[in-house]
Amino acid sequence: MGKNLTSRAEDYSKWYNELVVKSDLAENSGVRGCMVIKPYGYAIWEKMQAQLDKMFKETGHENAYFPLFIPKSYLSKEASHVEGFAKECAVVTHYRLKNAEDGSGIIVDEDAKLEEELIVRPTSETIIWDTYRRWVQSYRDLPILVNQWANVVRWEMRTRLFLRTAEFLWQEGHTAHATKQEAVEEAERIMHLYAEFAEEHMAVPVIKGTKTESERFAGAEDTYCIEALMQDGKALQAGTSHFLGQNFAKAFDVKFANKEGQQEYVWATSWGVSTRLMGALVMTHSDDNGLVLPPKLAPIQVVIVPIYKGLDQLDAISEKVEPLVKELRAKGLSVKYDKRDTHKPGFKFNEYELKGVPVRLAIGQRDLENGTYEVARRDTLQKESVAADAVVEKVVSLMDEIQENIFNKALEYRKEHITAVDSYEEFKQVIEEKGGFVSAHWDGTPETEDRIKEETKATIRCIPLDAKQEDGICMVTGKPSTQRVLFAKAY
Amino acid sequence: MGKNLTSRAEDYSKWYNELVVKSDLAENSGVRGCMVIKPYGYAIWEKMQAQLDKMFKETGHENAYFPLFIPKSYLSKEASHVEGFAKECAVVTHYRLKNAEDGSGIIVDEDAKLEEELIVRPTSETIIWDTYRRWVQSYRDLPILVNQWANVVRWEMRTRLFLRTAEFLWQEGHTAHATKQEAVEEAERIMHLYAEFAEEHMAVPVIKGTKTESERFAGAEDTYCIEALMQDGKALQAGTSHFLGQNFAKAFDVKFANKEGQQEYVWATSWGVSTRLMGALVMTHSDDNGLVLPPKLAPIQVVIVPIYKGLDQLDAISEKVEPLVKELRAKGLSVKYDKRDTHKPGFKFNEYELKGVPVRLAIGQRDLENGTYEVARRDTLQKESVAADAVVEKVVSLMDEIQENIFNKALEYRKEHITAVDSYEEFKQVIEEKGGFVSAHWDGTPETEDRIKEETKATIRCIPLDAKQEDGICMVTGKPSTQRVLFAKAY
Repeated sequence: MGKNLTSRAEDYSKWYNELVVKSDLAENSGVRGCMVIKPYGYAIWEKMQAQLDKMFKETGHENAYFPLFIPKSYLSKEASHVEGFAKECAVVTHYRLKNAEDGSGIIVDEDAKLEEELIVRPTSETIIWDTYRRWVQSYRDLPILVNQWANVVRWEMRTRLFLRTAEFLWQEGHTAHATKQEAVEEAERIMHLYAEFAEEHMAVPVIKGTKTESERFAGAEDTYCIEALMQDGKALQAGTSHFLGQNFAKAFDVKFANKEGQQEYVWATSWGVSTRLMGALVMTHSDDNGLVLPPKLAPIQVVIVPIYKGLDQLDAISEKVEPLVKELRAKGLSVKYDKRDTHKPGFKFNEYELKGVPVRLAIGQRDLENGTYEVARRDTLQKESVAADAVVEKVVSLMDEIQENIFNKALEYRKEHITAVDSYEEFKQVIEEKGGFVSAHWDGTPETEDRIKEETKATIRCIPLDAKQEDGICMVTGKPSTQRVLFAKAY
Repeated sequence: MGKNLTSRAEDYSKWYNELVVKSDLAENSGVRGCMVIKPYGYAIWEKMQAQLDKMFKETGHENAYFPLFIPKSYLSKEASHVEGFAKECAVVTHYRLKNAEDGSGIIVDEDAKLEEELIVRPTSETIIWDTYRRWVQSYRDLPILVNQWANVVRWEMRTRLFLRTAEFLWQEGHTAHATKQEAVEEAERIMHLYAEFAEEHMAVPVIKGTKTESERFAGAEDTYCIEALMQDGKALQAGTSHFLGQNFAKAFDVKFANKEGQQEYVWATSWGVSTRLMGALVMTHSDDNGLVLPPKLAPIQVVIVPIYKGLDQLDAISEKVEPLVKELRAKGLSVKYDKRDTHKPGFKFNEYELKGVPVRLAIGQRDLENGTYEVARRDTLQKESVAADAVVEKVVSLMDEIQENIFNKALEYRKEHITAVDSYEEFKQVIEEKGGFVSAHWDGTPETEDRIKEETKATIRCIPLDAKQEDGICMVTGKPSTQRVLFAKAY
């Protein structure tokens, strides 16, 4: 196809990296581990943001903004939290540069050392709960339902575009409640909201569940998650929602007077999804020809390519196409008419395939004579000739069809890649050879979980929400178990 | 009024600080110089963002995202740029914390020192032009019209909420062009766009102009600006747009092959507005009773307050109000019906006055009997009784009236505060006693500019775009001058 894209079968990881760069989503920057999100990639992220933001607001949340920097002492206040983040954080120690006296260039000015180091936020629980202490006095001040769109930094050693970068963009919700029940309900509500977003908008089927203790967020009492499955059989955690108990309220002394006038600690949740979703989107749907984007998130939903010899033919085509562009836009579609004379149709076909534009219309001399368009859908690569007066209706219905088709395709793949096993031998074989989720009994201990991880690289992705109660025995230790959990190798 | 707000006459600066905090726009955080933007303040910023983003896209710009960190060596590549920013930047030197061996707590891990320090971006020209080198080969790759919404950090010693904070939110446009003329046109286009935004949406009249050499952006060949005037007679720079020449292209070796196949350096612009606009908005319109918000940016445009005794009366009122809320919302208005039973009407009146809600409707028993509403507008504090069946039309027209009225009021104030002077004595007197812009002849030298600044604290805000050519003599040195420039004390 002239795209020079490594195939998935050949090297899935290489395919992913090449695709992200070649389709103009993102690229590495000169700063270790930090990416540049290019306009085409950012346009998809903006669509994700807009939809999520709408869903957050519909469920009563408001946006706010908290400082980028976290004093070192704040991070230290919640014990397991600092444990989780101290090992990989960017530390600001000085606030000025100066010219070296020996003329060797610009150096850090040692006279401008901060009294207390500042951490570039890896997540904002600590700075936010320090703020909530000022916001909460009485039960009347609760709940606080706040979200923040922000950049965060975690100094990862091995980075990959979108999937794991030192800096990434995300949203982080931080809510404060008067009761445990309310906070748990909020954490669950958001898990469902994330799942709805992933399935309805990204067309990515996800499994909802809770994390085991060792996979929980640092500082959480319970972590709810949505887990997706990539085409190489590896799982990807797509979003998490944490019930934080009163841990941060206690660490930052956030109390409220209840209706009886007694002081109580506030209950908390936090939850986030990040630009990692971009990685999940690419890896779920795309193929060896390039991106496949769900119509609901595609920056360009329809591209129209004229096929012509000479500018007279182009003018005749444009006369037909321009009113069509208006009609399609009036239907709310994002349409591009690519009449660049500097590139051949074949080049353009390749480009829009690579970029995952859901529907491509082509119109040449014969179409002009017959009153037709060639309509090609990106997901199946099928083409058909459609009468000009039926093309708007066709394109509109294709938006829904493609959205549904790629979801079903991904769901089908996942169904084929959930394997129930009852022995550790079988487990190891499936993890190694077939991949995907493996449903198995486990004795509920971190020790067994660790052993499995060490021996197979598979981790418990979640305890599924819809897991049936079923008596069984742990595949490793033979101890009793009451439900299966889902294992997988994961991103 | 029970708001305990210092009056503007008493202490303008204190009035501003109190107002920002009490009206729930923002507050200081535990991190020096960094603010928390609270939900009500952030909602206004979101409206600003949405409008600006629309205007940028309508003029062909796309959003992207570049790294938060800038390697020290990048910052050093453009000489005047590093000069401008090195003195006030946050420097990341380490990437890990650890537990102190003596058990004294969490400390910086000296084994995790970065080879090269990273600067938290004070602005992104350097990291972006390092990226553009990879994006530009040929004239076909130009222009690049990119904008970024981001946080930036400048380690200011004296900070004030919104006006000057160590971290602030902004947008920064960075464009690359094949010709000087195109780049200059872009820089001018954005100045006009900013002015349109300020005047049409913020209702803040601005003067367009260019900066003198000493007030230019570090690295710019020309800086276009919009200057607003606050109610205390001080000017506020509300937005800048820079023609950067080929300075960054040369520093980062960004060349393109022109149509003749020759290598040329690329021409650049950059431009930005920030959360500082929030400060301008507050200080332009607000009064001793609180915020006055332009309807186009108000998070709540209409509030309805019921006045009742007992829940039966409230029910009767709600029966009338609820359909009205729907009708108003159908007109695209943001409406809040505040029927909280925990607060008295007087408390609510105060609260919405403080928060600058443009229109307040009140309805009590007598209104119910008469079929009327009391309609109060925030800008003039005028109230009138309006028949229920005319209230939608009234409210809709008030939106335009208020938007126009507060703009005209600010414009009137500015007109009264532009004073032309011909002697330095008179200049000093006006600057000291009356404030505002002072229009005067100046000999065009940085030396004279510096002297005036030192002696009066007034700076040249801009060389106005519409300045008439007029022979005159510099008020300080008596040297010849061909046009007046605008001086003022400034934020």
